Amino acid sequence: MQTDLVAALDIGGTKIAGALVDGAGALITGARRPTPQQADGGRVMAAVREVLTELSAAPDWSRVRAVGIGSAGPVDAQAGTVSPVNIPGWRDHPLVDGVREHTGSLPVTLVGDGVAMAAAEHWQGAAQGRTAALCMVVSTGVGGGLVLGGQVYAGPTGNSGHIGHISVDLDGDPCPCGARGCVERIASGPNIARRALDGGWRPGPGGDTSAAAVAAAARAGDPVAAASFERAARALAAGIAATAALVEIEIAVIGGGVARAGEVLFAPLRRALGEFATLSYVQGLRVVPAQTGTDAGLVGAAAACRDLLEAEPAP
Amino acid sequence: MQTDLVAALDIGGTKIAGALVDGAGALITGARRPTPQQADGGRVMAAVREVLTELSAAPDWSRVRAVGIGSAGPVDAQAGTVSPVNIPGWRDHPLVDGVREHTGSLPVTLVGDGVAMAAAEHWQGAAQGRTAALCMVVSTGVGGGLVLGGQVYAGPTGNSGHIGHISVDLDGDPCPCGARGCVERIASGPNIARRALDGGWRPGPGGDTSAAAVAAAARAGDPVAAASFERAARALAAGIAATAALVEIEIAVIGGGVARAGEVLFAPLRRALGEFATLSYVQGLRVVPAQTGTDAGLVGAAAACRDLLEAEPAP
Repeated sequence: MQTDLVAALDIGGTKIAGALVDGAGALITGARRPTPQQADGGRVMAAVREVLTELSAAPDWSRVRAVGIGSAGPVDAQAGTVSPVNIPGWRDHPLVDGVREHTGSLPVTLVGDGVAMAAAEHWQGAAQGRTAALCMVVSTGVGGGLVLGGQVYAGPTGNSGHIGHISVDLDGDPCPCGARGCVERIASGPNIARRALDGGWRPGPGGDTSAAAVAAAARAGDPVAAASFERAARALAAGIAATAALVEIEIAVIGGGVARAGEVLFAPLRRALGEFATLSYVQGLRVVPAQTGTDAGLVGAAAACRDLLEAEPAP
Repeated sequence: MQTDLVAALDIGGTKIAGALVDGAGALITGARRPTPQQADGGRVMAAVREVLTELSAAPDWSRVRAVGIGSAGPVDAQAGTVSPVNIPGWRDHPLVDGVREHTGSLPVTLVGDGVAMAAAEHWQGAAQGRTAALCMVVSTGVGGGLVLGGQVYAGPTGNSGHIGHISVDLDGDPCPCGARGCVERIASGPNIARRALDGGWRPGPGGDTSAAAVAAAARAGDPVAAASFERAARALAAGIAATAALVEIEIAVIGGGVARAGEVLFAPLRRALGEFATLSYVQGLRVVPAQTGTDAGLVGAAAACRDLLEAEPAP
């Protein structure tokens, strides 16, 4: 379906974006709205409808063969519903039905945003040509998606690869999810910053206490700031090594704001991976930065849609 | 291939077993040899050849259409080699080539014993009909295999599902594999017994310090013995929940000697799973005892062979 188009939707807590995406991953026509804050579910859905209305007015709409949705999670691909943590108005919201009111008989696929990111990296980024990969976002939260057997593996509900909430420290700090010692609880941007502050790191005159500011301090030689990134790197390494032991990924691709710390994160991450990825069949595992950019959510929603429609009924 | 047969081999540190297995999972003809101890690789391979010679003398051999091997790991399905930890004479041993000398042009598949166990449980045991499952053995070691998308997922090298060496305690005790806090390091039979002894538990007059003896003590009310099983259960729960978050398994099946402790293990395991399996899409996860018995290795090698041959080239 190289000349066919996918109508892609990327739904997050900040914005709702849509685009017509061609078989080469190019965005033909785009539309976006801010995600209504503190709004009831109806207003958020109205924003989705506005995006779809704008897209479907484009002349290229006649070439659209499928609709791919990547949404902040958790999602339920079987029920066609979403319950994004950062869109409180939507709990078990029937997003797929709502979209279908606009798109008629076109097939609609729904995946979590981590799965969409993995699909984008597999199609156009650092996981191209890989048989098995974990692609993850380390940012305010930690999410991810998997490529298995050369295809995106979304899982029955579209949430697979959610490495942020696997526990790597079963006696560790309580996580908002209810468990303890989750990767996100140790390695997310806010947790990196909190740990640095708890250890005595202090921000500069501007008062910036972001993970990026901690990264800058680490780069300038602050040992407390560096130690906080090292701790995050160990948690990420344990989670990545666990994923490799379980499903034999050959590469881990890391994007998101925290990954922009560069070697402050990647150097200790590679060291820790050497400690945790010990089994013979995972020793070749590599960890690299993501390559796709701001449109990754849309490109990935389109890619996951193509992958899943081709792969049916296999995973 | 219901009336066709698979020649199955189950290769472990204690015995080398073979059988012709029909499309219903029945064992038609069997042969076995003890695994030569402290032997060079050649003598172990000679035992494999003896088993194959015995099998190929059976009249039903003419109905054999494929050869399935399940071996103690690690294995390398791509290279056709095995390096079983408990068969020191074999390191990168070209097992598949050795078998082919006997079996000619028949297709040969090789998987780890954890994958074979998963295939057996999916075919005939507690994972029947499941789309996604983790099947594991908790014994002297901890291993496992995965069912994904309704089929065995062996992974590129045949080792997928190896939950024993994922870290659930990144600051924990060093594991012989080189990492720290691995599930096996906390939950294997010898580690359950060691922890009970360290905590002050003492065996009865017979001096039995096995995990089974610790289980009996726990059942009789010994709090130290019970605490050691609870700790093992927490590690298993964290590992199972991680697997569920990553690949959306709906059931975890547990076999092996430690699982025979029954509720001493399963009761705290279910409690801990409630703590660690918190994401909406994993809350329905169940954990149950394995159903296949002593022939699971052979049945599983045959089942994995059928699954993988049908699934090619997908995983």
